Amino acid sequence: MQQPKIVFIGAGNVATHIGRLFNKHNYKIVQIFSRTKISAAKLAKTFLCSYTTDPKHINKNADIYILAIPDDSIARQLSSLKFPKNKIIIHTSGSIPMKILKNITRNYGVFYPIQTLSKKDKSLKKNIPIAIEASNEKTKVELLKLGSTISNNIYLLNSEERKAVHIAAVFTNNFTNYMYSIAEDILQQKEIPFDLLKPLAEETSKKIKKYSPSQVQTGPAIRSDNKVIKEHLKMLTVFPRYKKIYKLLSESIKISSKQLK
Amino acid sequence: MQQPKIVFIGAGNVATHIGRLFNKHNYKIVQIFSRTKISAAKLAKTFLCSYTTDPKHINKNADIYILAIPDDSIARQLSSLKFPKNKIIIHTSGSIPMKILKNITRNYGVFYPIQTLSKKDKSLKKNIPIAIEASNEKTKVELLKLGSTISNNIYLLNSEERKAVHIAAVFTNNFTNYMYSIAEDILQQKEIPFDLLKPLAEETSKKIKKYSPSQVQTGPAIRSDNKVIKEHLKMLTVFPRYKKIYKLLSESIKISSKQLK
Repeated sequence: MQQPKIVFIGAGNVATHIGRLFNKHNYKIVQIFSRTKISAAKLAKTFLCSYTTDPKHINKNADIYILAIPDDSIARQLSSLKFPKNKIIIHTSGSIPMKILKNITRNYGVFYPIQTLSKKDKSLKKNIPIAIEASNEKTKVELLKLGSTISNNIYLLNSEERKAVHIAAVFTNNFTNYMYSIAEDILQQKEIPFDLLKPLAEETSKKIKKYSPSQVQTGPAIRSDNKVIKEHLKMLTVFPRYKKIYKLLSESIKISSKQLK
Repeated sequence: MQQPKIVFIGAGNVATHIGRLFNKHNYKIVQIFSRTKISAAKLAKTFLCSYTTDPKHINKNADIYILAIPDDSIARQLSSLKFPKNKIIIHTSGSIPMKILKNITRNYGVFYPIQTLSKKDKSLKKNIPIAIEASNEKTKVELLKLGSTISNNIYLLNSEERKAVHIAAVFTNNFTNYMYSIAEDILQQKEIPFDLLKPLAEETSKKIKKYSPSQVQTGPAIRSDNKVIKEHLKMLTVFPRYKKIYKLLSESIKISSKQLK
């Protein structure tokens, strides 16, 4: 059997990470398209394939075309790209509905790796969940095959569900990282290394493997320890934005805990 | 050499966790004092030692007395307890200044394990940082010895620094866990299991082992992707408190990123 051929539209983090895994597992990346020549050339070199910056020169003989570009440029790029008929065309965004692709081909879908991908990481791990959605049965089967090469954790989610996952991921990843960032700032002011809190951060994320986060909430807010909260707020006067965040989160934790009871 | 003897004031999580480790490593827990008989008896049974609920019957022959009780009851308990002279008396709180102990003994200090301790966990790990403060050199040496039996990561911090660590720990642990909790609620509404986001949570906490959190911030806010932010806020209308949190954190991330540039 011939290896299915993939063209990537985009040469950023997503293409780099998932492409590397596809290339290892029975798929062949044949071309990288990117508006930025330097990124296209670089990634093409990694994948030992061709590249183009010209929408007219997109390879016509691939099986799957993967849009791995920022959410806010998907609509714009789609209007300028020409794809051959009846191919599978998918995007990799958590927040963009699948139907943005419906006028491009009959066989469209979404392939959303639920992970934070930065160029600094080496590669995806096998347990990274992939959310899949497809316009028809044939595409669904192809996306399941594609997904199972890089993950053992595949969820079929529609666009509405995927958007909820995306919002929840913003809290789990982006906002959590921001909590770390605030903690680092607070320590830095006293010249204390953030290293001190790294074991705590890891332990916190490990705890939810076994318990629902609402069941293991700790801290001054859930204990309604207003004396400590007041002292912390006083000390945070030098960081007005962090003070506001501390206050809002503490109030919300108190309300959440009451609703739980 | 005789094993140093420890009395615990308090029979909660902290006493349970650190006590178990002390008992294993060259220290001997001789007594548990707690106002709650059932907790005192239970922990005493674990440590094969005696217990009392009567402040008058606190063992006079121990070397170290460890207050492992909630922050808001330290002052109250201290006024009712009688300790023998010249013993080492310490508390385990992140937020209470060391000097709360200064009228009790000459040899006082703080022994603050920087970890989230819930009864559900089995035990502390060796890399849990311990913040230590002492009133004099002799006590410091004893606390360093005590700390090194249960951790290879000991920091000498004064009360002011320890308070900063405590606030930073609230962000790193309590508020991060609350982010998970919000994410779980958002998914629950669509009947999607929170399992989907557990690998992301773990990856997020692992990333900061190598990088400063401010350098690896991702998400719609840091990209100033206002279209996605607007859509997320719209979808969060059903969760007014979470919407307010999403908005405040996104605004703050934008400002933080500008200051960084």
